[in-house]
Amino acid sequence: MADGDTTGQEARRSRGGRQQRRDARVGVEAGIHRPYIVRGIPTYDILSEESLQAIEATADRILAEIGIELREDHEAMRLYKAAGAEVTSETEDVWRIRFAPGMLREILKTAPAEFTQHARNPANNVRIGGKNVVFAPSYGSPFVMDLDKGRRYGTIEDFRNFIKLAQSSPWLHHSGGTVCEPTDVPVNKRHLDMVYSHIRYSDRAFLGSITAAERAADSVEMARIVFGEGFADQNCVVMGNFNTTSPLVIDGVTAAGIRTYAEANQGSIHLPFLLGGAVAPLTIAGMVAQGFAESMASCALTQLVRPGSPAILASFFSSMSLKTGSPTFGMPEPAIGSLAMGQLARRINLPLRCAGNFSTSKLPDGQAMWQSMMSMMSAIQGGANYVLHSAGFLDGLLSMSYEKVVMDTDICGALHAYLDGMAVNEDTLAFEALNELGPGQHLFSTQHTLRHYETAYWDSALDDNQPWETWDEQGGIDYAQRANTRWKKILREYEAPALDQGIDEALQDFMARRKASMADMWY
Amino acid sequence: MADGDTTGQEARRSRGGRQQRRDARVGVEAGIHRPYIVRGIPTYDILSEESLQAIEATADRILAEIGIELREDHEAMRLYKAAGAEVTSETEDVWRIRFAPGMLREILKTAPAEFTQHARNPANNVRIGGKNVVFAPSYGSPFVMDLDKGRRYGTIEDFRNFIKLAQSSPWLHHSGGTVCEPTDVPVNKRHLDMVYSHIRYSDRAFLGSITAAERAADSVEMARIVFGEGFADQNCVVMGNFNTTSPLVIDGVTAAGIRTYAEANQGSIHLPFLLGGAVAPLTIAGMVAQGFAESMASCALTQLVRPGSPAILASFFSSMSLKTGSPTFGMPEPAIGSLAMGQLARRINLPLRCAGNFSTSKLPDGQAMWQSMMSMMSAIQGGANYVLHSAGFLDGLLSMSYEKVVMDTDICGALHAYLDGMAVNEDTLAFEALNELGPGQHLFSTQHTLRHYETAYWDSALDDNQPWETWDEQGGIDYAQRANTRWKKILREYEAPALDQGIDEALQDFMARRKASMADMWY
Repeated sequence: MADGDTTGQEARRSRGGRQQRRDARVGVEAGIHRPYIVRGIPTYDILSEESLQAIEATADRILAEIGIELREDHEAMRLYKAAGAEVTSETEDVWRIRFAPGMLREILKTAPAEFTQHARNPANNVRIGGKNVVFAPSYGSPFVMDLDKGRRYGTIEDFRNFIKLAQSSPWLHHSGGTVCEPTDVPVNKRHLDMVYSHIRYSDRAFLGSITAAERAADSVEMARIVFGEGFADQNCVVMGNFNTTSPLVIDGVTAAGIRTYAEANQGSIHLPFLLGGAVAPLTIAGMVAQGFAESMASCALTQLVRPGSPAILASFFSSMSLKTGSPTFGMPEPAIGSLAMGQLARRINLPLRCAGNFSTSKLPDGQAMWQSMMSMMSAIQGGANYVLHSAGFLDGLLSMSYEKVVMDTDICGALHAYLDGMAVNEDTLAFEALNELGPGQHLFSTQHTLRHYETAYWDSALDDNQPWETWDEQGGIDYAQRANTRWKKILREYEAPALDQGIDEALQDFMARRKASMADMWY
Repeated sequence: MADGDTTGQEARRSRGGRQQRRDARVGVEAGIHRPYIVRGIPTYDILSEESLQAIEATADRILAEIGIELREDHEAMRLYKAAGAEVTSETEDVWRIRFAPGMLREILKTAPAEFTQHARNPANNVRIGGKNVVFAPSYGSPFVMDLDKGRRYGTIEDFRNFIKLAQSSPWLHHSGGTVCEPTDVPVNKRHLDMVYSHIRYSDRAFLGSITAAERAADSVEMARIVFGEGFADQNCVVMGNFNTTSPLVIDGVTAAGIRTYAEANQGSIHLPFLLGGAVAPLTIAGMVAQGFAESMASCALTQLVRPGSPAILASFFSSMSLKTGSPTFGMPEPAIGSLAMGQLARRINLPLRCAGNFSTSKLPDGQAMWQSMMSMMSAIQGGANYVLHSAGFLDGLLSMSYEKVVMDTDICGALHAYLDGMAVNEDTLAFEALNELGPGQHLFSTQHTLRHYETAYWDSALDDNQPWETWDEQGGIDYAQRANTRWKKILREYEAPALDQGIDEALQDFMARRKASMADMWY
């Protein structure tokens, strides 16, 4: 009966985690955290076997009959062809690649179901796949916003600030990648400052650049400087987050970038960003089938380059407002799609990236948080292993919000407790606690209450759960304003984790040389 | 393959529902709605068989060894005793009632797994139990609040306003009960005005009073006036929402009220309101076991009075802030508990009331909405059949919020779409939509998109999903302020559903006689 719903190992983990959480609470996000979550609750499987097979069959049919359009990358074309795909030239450097049913599944058998991405602080290594859940901040917003200064283009200072905020939260596990676009740095040099900032201001695992093959190579090279060339060749120390060009296209920059990471044995995420009615069918079943097909085709390239290199199946589903045609985020239909994607990923035995704290709201208000919660629940219930966009996402991903970062990280804390599930054993069933004083008597003073008082519940650092009168006396401050105060406090108190001076100098030297080797580009 | 995850009947329902939703959207909550939801997705079962058995065994042990303390109601004592319970007198009108393991389950076999509560408009009849989900507004707040006037005691005018707001939403299905306390009406006459207001301003099903046996009887009598005595004796036309006095006590007023509803063949809800560490163990497994035990004992009384009368198993779980000891609502641990309660209810084959849009926030802000969403998701995923507190809940249930009513009802709309799940069939899999134009081509103009454009997604009446620039030009209004504008508009445009004049006069006559028969009481 002990630990009915968790294995012994997970239960120990979980108890350890509870203790760490308590420590973190005392230290108010002092950086003591679980390196990642091992889920203690099952996934939420909403589709029947019949429906799953129908989606898989449609994905297979898409791949076999329509195929994927590959652009520009001759080497990728050669690899797909050598693996047995049917390749038809559309122009000199555009090919249609068709895959016989089941072919991609066969190729993907060499991809690991679970792998470790190493962090420069080994205590922060993350395990991706299986029952593991890793939270990373949001990715790719050109704008940033806060309550004081409103919305403006992101800068490298914002970029560093978001890394610092993420690093300061015990409820995130990964430093992410393009936490905002540092638009004040030239486009062709930005990746160097971004990767360096992740290494310098965080000691967690991170994502490298994917916007050009040479930027991908620079990212891998900087990771090698940190981890050593030999170690980096045998272990995942950096990952790239790649988008297909939906519907059904893989462009040359993406294919070359994927090959760069895979050749180096580094991880890659393969993400169709699907807006229903625009680049995917409006109906969710079709959107999921397409996303699954695209992501499998993209993932497979890694195994053709270097079998065994880590690849993450991924999907990003969004709907649209039928009134205006605008994209919508955090809606119920994509949430249902994400749950289905979880089932498909497990059937093909690949780690999954899916959903996150999505919202279309332009402020860190009630809309932002209900949409986020609906979307995020689908990630954690659906079994997503790597949840990019766990913190900061507003404005349909166009803006990274300082307030929402601290709101979302707090909620990520709540999700740690949620994913722990319910321990069912003699102690937690607490018969003796009820029996001690009997009917009608409050349990404040029972041994059971005293024993569990400090650890029973997750405690928010940002919610106001006081009585109305107390809250009112203290000024009646709303959630967004509390978040505003909080991110400033965290940045004031932030201390960078130590970085080996030799590594720091080597990184700076590498960046200087790379920057000197090319003229600034601004688009 | 067609409709892989919904039965034919449900799929038709669902398609009908989609059409109705579209109509509702056009009419902006014009009152066209599905009478209730039939879930198209499975429940989220988080506990293993072993854990469920451990909780059930603990509940049995609580009932057999500690027992329930019954106060004052000699008739209830006599009924429990006659059914075979072991009754020990503690004082002249306090008894300890102990139940042999399995005894309550046996008694509860005569309770219906599913039943219909009739509305005065038969189109609004709700089916409670099984795969059905019914949303009702929040219940029991002494205060009300809005952004203009802040927090103050509720009045009968507020009470009527909340009924009108609920009736105007296509996403609620039931008028609820004490939508706020009308504190300007004497305590002993309040129930008459409340029941009358539900009948007058709504044509949906509603809850009657439970605060005294004679008020319960008045509620049933007023329902008889509306539905006819014969019909009301054979059908559920009103329900009472009863709280146990946790831990493990059923007081005399509650027992007598339960008997009153059951004798009249009317429905009753049996709710332990459990605050961990105060009236229940801090650990969730123990809280669930206790709640299950209390609710079973309370439900069983209905079957001893009148076998076959409808009874709803229920639970309300809350945690506490470990920093302050204040109760917290919408937290992860109670959400996990609610999912477990769903599993227990299905194993005993009883309808379930559980969770709702809970929050401790004092404003309709981001905290309010993330907490609500976490709590509400546990209700709908866990298989709750009757979700009281679906709209308006703020301030730890102390305040009913005008803004939050319209926020929550909008989210209830999103949950309709969520509970519909994913239709998987040739049309929704949309192979031809992708094939029509092929890779790299937007799907805006495909036949598939045109065919589904008006119905593919739920559309919010309250979210702002426009581009930032449009939103900014329109004044940059936040969610709470939009809700403020919206509830006023709904009240302005509200029209009462027609009520038969004879019934209205009979009700008014009954109320006048009852009011004249007693002096005002103010506590």
